[in-house]
Amino acid sequence: MKLKNDLLIRTALGEKVDRPPVWLMRQAGRILPQYRALRGKLSGFKELVETPHLAAEVTIQPVDELGVDAAIIFSDILVIPEAMGLTYEMVEKKGPLFPETIKSGADIDKLISGADAASHLKYVYDALETTVKELDGRVPLIGFAGAPWTILAYMVEGSGSKTFSKAKKFLYAEPALAHQLLQKITDTTIAYLKLKVKSGANLIQVFDSWAGILSPIQFRTFALPYLKQIATAIDNVPVTVFAKGAWFAYQDLEHVDCNVVGIDWNTPPMYAKTWLKTKVCQGNLDPCQLYGHPDEVRAAALKMVKEFGGKHIANLGHGVYPDTPLDNVRVFVDTIKGYSY
Amino acid sequence: MKLKNDLLIRTALGEKVDRPPVWLMRQAGRILPQYRALRGKLSGFKELVETPHLAAEVTIQPVDELGVDAAIIFSDILVIPEAMGLTYEMVEKKGPLFPETIKSGADIDKLISGADAASHLKYVYDALETTVKELDGRVPLIGFAGAPWTILAYMVEGSGSKTFSKAKKFLYAEPALAHQLLQKITDTTIAYLKLKVKSGANLIQVFDSWAGILSPIQFRTFALPYLKQIATAIDNVPVTVFAKGAWFAYQDLEHVDCNVVGIDWNTPPMYAKTWLKTKVCQGNLDPCQLYGHPDEVRAAALKMVKEFGGKHIANLGHGVYPDTPLDNVRVFVDTIKGYSY
Repeated sequence: MKLKNDLLIRTALGEKVDRPPVWLMRQAGRILPQYRALRGKLSGFKELVETPHLAAEVTIQPVDELGVDAAIIFSDILVIPEAMGLTYEMVEKKGPLFPETIKSGADIDKLISGADAASHLKYVYDALETTVKELDGRVPLIGFAGAPWTILAYMVEGSGSKTFSKAKKFLYAEPALAHQLLQKITDTTIAYLKLKVKSGANLIQVFDSWAGILSPIQFRTFALPYLKQIATAIDNVPVTVFAKGAWFAYQDLEHVDCNVVGIDWNTPPMYAKTWLKTKVCQGNLDPCQLYGHPDEVRAAALKMVKEFGGKHIANLGHGVYPDTPLDNVRVFVDTIKGYSY
Repeated sequence: MKLKNDLLIRTALGEKVDRPPVWLMRQAGRILPQYRALRGKLSGFKELVETPHLAAEVTIQPVDELGVDAAIIFSDILVIPEAMGLTYEMVEKKGPLFPETIKSGADIDKLISGADAASHLKYVYDALETTVKELDGRVPLIGFAGAPWTILAYMVEGSGSKTFSKAKKFLYAEPALAHQLLQKITDTTIAYLKLKVKSGANLIQVFDSWAGILSPIQFRTFALPYLKQIATAIDNVPVTVFAKGAWFAYQDLEHVDCNVVGIDWNTPPMYAKTWLKTKVCQGNLDPCQLYGHPDEVRAAALKMVKEFGGKHIANLGHGVYPDTPLDNVRVFVDTIKGYSY
């Protein structure tokens, strides 16, 4: 499918462009009234994830409504543990919950992995194919996965957590088991992402959402090697790595075989540019900035674009919060689209 | 009261010492069996905070049990909003909860502040005086408070949160009100900390626990000016500022009138030393490291001490987790005490 708007892809590949492309993490979600209307009719979050034509529908909503330069397939990073044999529930207002968690080598042995596990996620590939067809080349479609450390964190902790101290304890107390589990997750993720590309994803983003709670040494030991494997294994499309909070590891990320690095809102653009000389940066407006006055949203968006000064994909530094005023999201998107270098 | 062990104070003041002093954030707490025994007999956390002879007892427990180089008064940062008129509850396993939150200028106007508010905290000053008497100069006593931004975060959000997006929204949407509230908190905190010093605190630590969720600009606007006011107002004793996660603001913290800066476990010691040239650093072992094998705890503690290489107070990079094996805490403390520069 030939892309009519390939600004995201050209930017990710390091080409010179007239303005930064713009999209928002979690753009397909509660900020949109049409999402809330559809979601209200369903039994739950997982029904939406697992029903390809519905996932495709909400994936395209922000393209229609906001005019962003990319769609990102509606899904969840936790489909991977589920495909490996560890089911999750999505508890309203509380987040994910795993009735069973990984505690021992025997638990890890029971998990399936690689292509076998990835083959269980047909609903995701179907959703991608439907989306590609319906997008008809208007914008690129982003496929994504969680990074192995972040997926392990949920599989061991069993739910979200402020400290993920159970998951981190597992790294310190059972390093060999941790590596075994991380490798199984990595093998599955690679097979999964390759099938996503085959199903039409034009760019792959890997979310290491809990990178920032690791010490620099733990990041280097338990997160980085698996991110590297994934980035190296994906070919044909550009790869973005978003290791949230991992400012201390930018010199390592510079050596990961990816095109784009996601930057969170704590990180001054100048710091990111200094360490990530060969990468394109994506981010990094504070999502809470969109609660401010529209004039301030505009000013902050322009300040960000100027500070990155090219080799930049405009986005927030984190997923957009569900109660963000939609008009401010529009101001953000339109400010970027009206800019030129 | 003349201190028999003044290593912490001499180190904080920048004197050359033979080894780093060592203590642990949250050392007076659930890691100790004698704490759990006492706590089990009480109605709740607040009873312990508000009963001076009990607060003194648990403050001294880690000095007896672990031989640390400092005691830190058992209390909570949320006594300040309570003294200002906003009561909190401590919900078992969930954390703090404010039945009423700050939403408007009228809510802020109703709060009392400064010396009037600080005078409500007699139980804290009594606890300090009792502790000083019972410590009999064995080690210095640390008094503490939350930083104004962190206190505002709880007063507006109403509870703990992963994102504190309600509190951050308040900063973006109501900046004038935010500054008004921050000033009231600051005035109260200064009066409170001066009374703590008068009651025998030998060092003051200010915890900006949620500094790390602010963007650099928001930190500079809403956190830094109030930290500066507090650090400047405290005289006679050294001051430590622990702005957790605020690596992006170290160049600002270098210009705060404090002696010591707390370093979290994400931050490489070399990075901290580069930016904080005139400060003593405190930290920064990953609290989860204490879940590892004792040999690794020892190695990690030594690695940390060598990397800081002086001008350093040994500690964790965050409060010790309640389920940490006590024997590993001992290994950590004893490793530091056995070290010499």
